[in-house]
Amino acid sequence: MAEHNALLCPALDKVAGEEFLQKAFQIMLEEGVRKGMDASEKVCDWKEPEELQQILDLDLKEGGEPQERLLDRCRDVIRYSVKTCHPRFFNQLFSGLDPHALAGRLITEMLNTSQYTYEIAPVFVLMEEVVLKKLRELIGWEEGDGLFSPGGSISNMYAMNVARYHRFPDCKQKGNWAIPKLAVFTSQECHYSIQKGAAFLGIGTDNIYLVAVDEKGKMIPADLEKKINQAKSERAFPFFVNATCGTTVLGAFDPVAEIADVCARHKIWLHVDAAWGGSALLSQRHRHLLNGVERADSVAWNPHKMLMTGLQCSAFLLRDSSGLLQRCHCAEATYLFQTDKFYNRTYDRGDQTIQCGRKVDCFKLWLMWKANGTRGLEQRVDRAFAMTRYLADEIKKREGFQLVIEPEFTNLCFWYVPPSLRGKEGCTDYCLRLGKVAPMIKERMMKKGSMMVSYQPLGNRVNFFRQVVTNPAVTREDLDFFLDEIERLGRDL
Amino acid sequence: MAEHNALLCPALDKVAGEEFLQKAFQIMLEEGVRKGMDASEKVCDWKEPEELQQILDLDLKEGGEPQERLLDRCRDVIRYSVKTCHPRFFNQLFSGLDPHALAGRLITEMLNTSQYTYEIAPVFVLMEEVVLKKLRELIGWEEGDGLFSPGGSISNMYAMNVARYHRFPDCKQKGNWAIPKLAVFTSQECHYSIQKGAAFLGIGTDNIYLVAVDEKGKMIPADLEKKINQAKSERAFPFFVNATCGTTVLGAFDPVAEIADVCARHKIWLHVDAAWGGSALLSQRHRHLLNGVERADSVAWNPHKMLMTGLQCSAFLLRDSSGLLQRCHCAEATYLFQTDKFYNRTYDRGDQTIQCGRKVDCFKLWLMWKANGTRGLEQRVDRAFAMTRYLADEIKKREGFQLVIEPEFTNLCFWYVPPSLRGKEGCTDYCLRLGKVAPMIKERMMKKGSMMVSYQPLGNRVNFFRQVVTNPAVTREDLDFFLDEIERLGRDL
Repeated sequence: MAEHNALLCPALDKVAGEEFLQKAFQIMLEEGVRKGMDASEKVCDWKEPEELQQILDLDLKEGGEPQERLLDRCRDVIRYSVKTCHPRFFNQLFSGLDPHALAGRLITEMLNTSQYTYEIAPVFVLMEEVVLKKLRELIGWEEGDGLFSPGGSISNMYAMNVARYHRFPDCKQKGNWAIPKLAVFTSQECHYSIQKGAAFLGIGTDNIYLVAVDEKGKMIPADLEKKINQAKSERAFPFFVNATCGTTVLGAFDPVAEIADVCARHKIWLHVDAAWGGSALLSQRHRHLLNGVERADSVAWNPHKMLMTGLQCSAFLLRDSSGLLQRCHCAEATYLFQTDKFYNRTYDRGDQTIQCGRKVDCFKLWLMWKANGTRGLEQRVDRAFAMTRYLADEIKKREGFQLVIEPEFTNLCFWYVPPSLRGKEGCTDYCLRLGKVAPMIKERMMKKGSMMVSYQPLGNRVNFFRQVVTNPAVTREDLDFFLDEIERLGRDL
Repeated sequence: MAEHNALLCPALDKVAGEEFLQKAFQIMLEEGVRKGMDASEKVCDWKEPEELQQILDLDLKEGGEPQERLLDRCRDVIRYSVKTCHPRFFNQLFSGLDPHALAGRLITEMLNTSQYTYEIAPVFVLMEEVVLKKLRELIGWEEGDGLFSPGGSISNMYAMNVARYHRFPDCKQKGNWAIPKLAVFTSQECHYSIQKGAAFLGIGTDNIYLVAVDEKGKMIPADLEKKINQAKSERAFPFFVNATCGTTVLGAFDPVAEIADVCARHKIWLHVDAAWGGSALLSQRHRHLLNGVERADSVAWNPHKMLMTGLQCSAFLLRDSSGLLQRCHCAEATYLFQTDKFYNRTYDRGDQTIQCGRKVDCFKLWLMWKANGTRGLEQRVDRAFAMTRYLADEIKKREGFQLVIEPEFTNLCFWYVPPSLRGKEGCTDYCLRLGKVAPMIKERMMKKGSMMVSYQPLGNRVNFFRQVVTNPAVTREDLDFFLDEIERLGRDL
């Protein structure tokens, strides 16, 4: 009974809670948004892991802490985190901060619901459909299906699983042992999630046939055909071709229309991994890069990259409108998808996913779209292309900068060759030494906190920078700074 | 050049953006948090899908909209969404709103980074490790591994994949065709993600052996042993046993210690799906429900359920500390996991996951833990048990209420028998009629907006309510209201 009496009062202080939220939000605005977007502040306040561990005092203890201490902790977390909204953050395929998308994310977090049933997420069930339909229209599909998944890797896995089920529905019940050995086709330059997906789905990475690419990093359709025939001769069943629109490093677009011809001839599912490049569909000027995408069976497209919705926002889109997605994944849990609901249960879409609880990923994109309109988003995409062209032009003018390839998309890949290496291309250790330049410059920029950009080797090319500018808050001044800073940090190497 | 000049100014208005964020946040606090947590407001303002579609005007158009219109839209989205923080929302295994967790989620969204490398998420890479270590300690492991995944279903899939790789590492390269047909064991009452996982991983749902449960919904170890022998006789290879701690409907705990004995005898990977019940480990008084969990090879535990961190927060925990998770999932993308980084690259943990970009799910839990301490979280768990006992006691006193089973955890399952059916248990149509009571009451409460609770059939039991109270803001008054309201809504049925 004493225990029951303890239940007379709530064990959560709403007033104190709201006060904390207000204060934490103001800290977030000041320290994260305002300073984060300020070019005169650091992109990151770099600390070695051991030092950062000491500063943050991360251990979880028996007792709680006072509100002021917790607010200081929020400040510290922001301070020592990387400001991905900073105008000189160019390290990933995502960057920047769209205020409307962020508002959508904050409200999504507050509402804290799951996308599975209409009763629990009425607004978001309807909204997800509208957003997915819009994305499908941009692909060129009047009908279709889809969902938001927790990222492009999982969207690609969905594609592989649906393709397998489409050809061999028995697999769902009987597993891979009941079907022929499957073969997956993708280019050497594809995203590594194709490897991860093949392993996870029990298909195996050895059953991926890597198709050759041309000098621009695009899949060679003739080699695809060759690899398909090779797989058949090796008694593997070709069931899935992945074409990449916007490869991670070079930003290459596989020739989808020609690949679609090959797939049609061999009756193979065509998936287009447009996680990165899909947003080019918004641009009248640049959407030709994805010519033929409307012939795909499925498409992955991550608005959290170029469109700045914030992680995670990955659409898995399907041309099929017969309910393939549902049949492939349904398990009919009776505690969630009751058959005797009082509303039209076709709105309960949760059983077409591999998840149970699923985050709401549509609202941030929807609100941003409402704020900017399709035209506004198109302008952002066009601006990203323009920034790349500006940088490419500048690089051609500057001594010591060398393009890896002429950019077709928004990935600008280049080497910085310090004075000590210029004119030494013929020396035996040139490549070895050049390959050490980008990591050294990266270390220096990180420790200085002036900017962030990624580098990597690729095939027989030693480390080069990959610059990607998608943030519309970036100006020419930031781009000039970027090139100057590379020079400043690297000229003594 | 004209194009290059357009880049002189930013294409994002920071001042207007911050103003919008401020206003949207205040709307969120007023309409979502304050009204959402107010028992005198509706849990949801129910609309049929067609009507809601009209109200919301969801279509995405060419042009953008003014700020005031967008703020109205935020208001509408909140208004017509279900208030999962409402003290009379009992529909899912998650509910309530913890202000510290929410603050953590807002800051996470603002920082918008991905958990894969130390350079991009220094704070969160360290923090994830600390939080996972704490969860492992509560399990009883001094060492181990783990990650946060996008939900319990995916955590369970991780377990299945790691178990397969552990036994048959070749599978990663060669697929299921190179290994014996696998057999999965789980109880009839397990979560449906085991089905989804077996299908997705190419194992097949037919290769799941459903183990019988006792009248409380707990797996019968003797039947597990029987099913394992049956699988062997059917030439399937038993590799994975899933024990559930906290089944979705009844809240049953499989006897882990006894199951561990069976697994040890047969050398089978033991996974414990404690997505729901794991939080009982925080309670000195109730952690015995999971006795033996320390003998598991892997555990799934969702703090976004009972601990109120907010979706998504699902820990996949592994006893192995040899790097199994990394070996099982790595693909070694050179553009992300460069081998020549200037810092200790063992902090780059992203390659041990099946995702590439991965949301930060640790901060909300960490901040809430810092605010409440382990003791504060324990009190919440104990309070959830106390609320269930209170309700069970009340139900026994009230005419027309009937427990399905005596609760052992926090799932309270009961029938409401309206006066017209009382004493008619012997009639042929009793069950048919009783099964229609819960859906009717549910429809009425939804349309009235007074509260939300789930119902479902289970085995040969017709529809019954499943009441789950985890929100510490709920008081005895809310619980009394809950029972009164069921009566009010159902007594004429």
